[in-house]
Amino acid sequence: MSVNRRFILAARPQGLPRPSDFRLADEPVPAVGEGEFLIRNHYASIDPAIRGWLDAGGNYMPPVPIGDAVRASTVGVVLESRCDMVRAGDWVMGLNKIETHSLGRADGFTHGIDLRAVSSPTAYLSVAGAVGLTAWFGVEDIMRPGPDDTLLISAAAGAVGSLVGQLAKMRGTRVVGIAGGPAKCAKLTDRYGFDAAIDHRGKDVTALAADIAACCPGGVNFVYENVGGVCLDAALLNLADGAQVLLCGLISEYNLEPVGARHLWQLIVRTATMRGYLISQYVHRFPEGVHAMAGLAAQGKLIYDEHVEAGIDNALHALLRLFEGSNEGKMILKLV
Amino acid sequence: MSVNRRFILAARPQGLPRPSDFRLADEPVPAVGEGEFLIRNHYASIDPAIRGWLDAGGNYMPPVPIGDAVRASTVGVVLESRCDMVRAGDWVMGLNKIETHSLGRADGFTHGIDLRAVSSPTAYLSVAGAVGLTAWFGVEDIMRPGPDDTLLISAAAGAVGSLVGQLAKMRGTRVVGIAGGPAKCAKLTDRYGFDAAIDHRGKDVTALAADIAACCPGGVNFVYENVGGVCLDAALLNLADGAQVLLCGLISEYNLEPVGARHLWQLIVRTATMRGYLISQYVHRFPEGVHAMAGLAAQGKLIYDEHVEAGIDNALHALLRLFEGSNEGKMILKLV
Repeated sequence: MSVNRRFILAARPQGLPRPSDFRLADEPVPAVGEGEFLIRNHYASIDPAIRGWLDAGGNYMPPVPIGDAVRASTVGVVLESRCDMVRAGDWVMGLNKIETHSLGRADGFTHGIDLRAVSSPTAYLSVAGAVGLTAWFGVEDIMRPGPDDTLLISAAAGAVGSLVGQLAKMRGTRVVGIAGGPAKCAKLTDRYGFDAAIDHRGKDVTALAADIAACCPGGVNFVYENVGGVCLDAALLNLADGAQVLLCGLISEYNLEPVGARHLWQLIVRTATMRGYLISQYVHRFPEGVHAMAGLAAQGKLIYDEHVEAGIDNALHALLRLFEGSNEGKMILKLV
Repeated sequence: MSVNRRFILAARPQGLPRPSDFRLADEPVPAVGEGEFLIRNHYASIDPAIRGWLDAGGNYMPPVPIGDAVRASTVGVVLESRCDMVRAGDWVMGLNKIETHSLGRADGFTHGIDLRAVSSPTAYLSVAGAVGLTAWFGVEDIMRPGPDDTLLISAAAGAVGSLVGQLAKMRGTRVVGIAGGPAKCAKLTDRYGFDAAIDHRGKDVTALAADIAACCPGGVNFVYENVGGVCLDAALLNLADGAQVLLCGLISEYNLEPVGARHLWQLIVRTATMRGYLISQYVHRFPEGVHAMAGLAAQGKLIYDEHVEAGIDNALHALLRLFEGSNEGKMILKLV
């Protein structure tokens, strides 16, 4: 097969992405230049960060150009290599595109993966991928919560949040999660071992803050923030002195004009810190994180859920489910 | 004189405080109990923080009770003492009230002051008081900016901001100030030695952010934030990688519903930190800070401006000038 099927950005989305913002295109599989290799992508990681890459402004990555395939992490098999780093038949992961075939090069993002360490190659897009590494370095390198601490996690049933909570529980920390709806809340306590769960649905800042206060009467020492908006403001109203807010994502604001955090004053009152966190800070330590997370998963100490949607024609559907919150685990798109 | 004239909170202000929220009362000078001492207040410090203490919610201090005098730092002379710590005739400063006579006790806030180290007792409410200590520990202990850094300061012509900028200049840092109106901006560069000044008047976030970008093409490494709102959002849009925002005050929001910071996403993109800062963290190091700041002032290395309003009947007027921004230096109310 010499066709590369690609999920192309046709127009910059306004708010929630729509079908007319994208098109599928069949293009020739690209020729492999010196120093390059051709990857047959098996799985693509569908992440909230993709939404930001579609905007013209760019953020920590250049915007996806109109007419190009949408950027995503993928895992796949090398079909042909003119690069010393990899050989045909190797499994690799890298920051590629939502397309059946990607050209790779030794750019620091692409690296070989060891399927013997995991039960499925998809693990490199979940527990041993960016999601797992984000949880690992956030808990073990930045927050390092202790047994006397309370950690509050928003989007706690999500791919990152569920791992953050489990890692913190291994440290003896009291872990409270915020999620949308009773099913997700039950999953937090019953499946991921959280100490308590709070449903944010239908609550304004005052109501959600009151629920957190009831659950955390001494305040929260750490906040792992994935959501922003109401969740962040309600968390700010419950900080313990010297608290740390690790700002990992603001998914509630990606398709809207941001409402902003209105209770920043609490950072002053509590002499607290809010820290922005991008996993790319830790690129040089990825092997250490992969080893740790794959090891914990193999020992059965971490539960990680994957939600696989099949087919490149489901790419937009998979992305939209993230913003609906209707995914049941790390969202992965199967491309083979 | 056995009358204690007091500036009493009569009602909790809604938004900007009004005359009907306060009244003056003449009460008997209180009797001095065991462990207490009577202070004749000469000067009271009029600070933005007072506004927060008038609200029912309380923040890092309990709210001022309705019917009690409004809390403020004062300097004065001990008239009578039944406490080993001080003797009649000593000059002291402490967290007291806007009233002619306060009862002091050994509470950790009140301490003796040395008039030989300064040119006026008012210095203990400005350069050698909370204002000066806030600048000192913020620059020398938390931020520690270097010669390759750019520091952006909001309310830069204010009592804290002007000292922060001068201390950072001594470290070789490039210092850019934001202030309201051409007169204050001229003062920043001509009087306080800032490298550049930006007038925020009449500008929205986009326009102010563009002015900061033009002035700081490499982004800002440190933000000393006193204002919030438009100033903070415009600063967030100009962070350099790894920047630190020291959140010292949010004066633009104290009389309003907070608008919130809408560009928090930039903390993630820039892996930046926002840290809330209260000078009370440094109580145990006050003597060190007073020594440093009084010394720099005595050597003529720091310019500090004081704006003295006379008479307890001008207390509200003095407070309102802070929110108008029409004060020309640290606002101090003369009570003798």
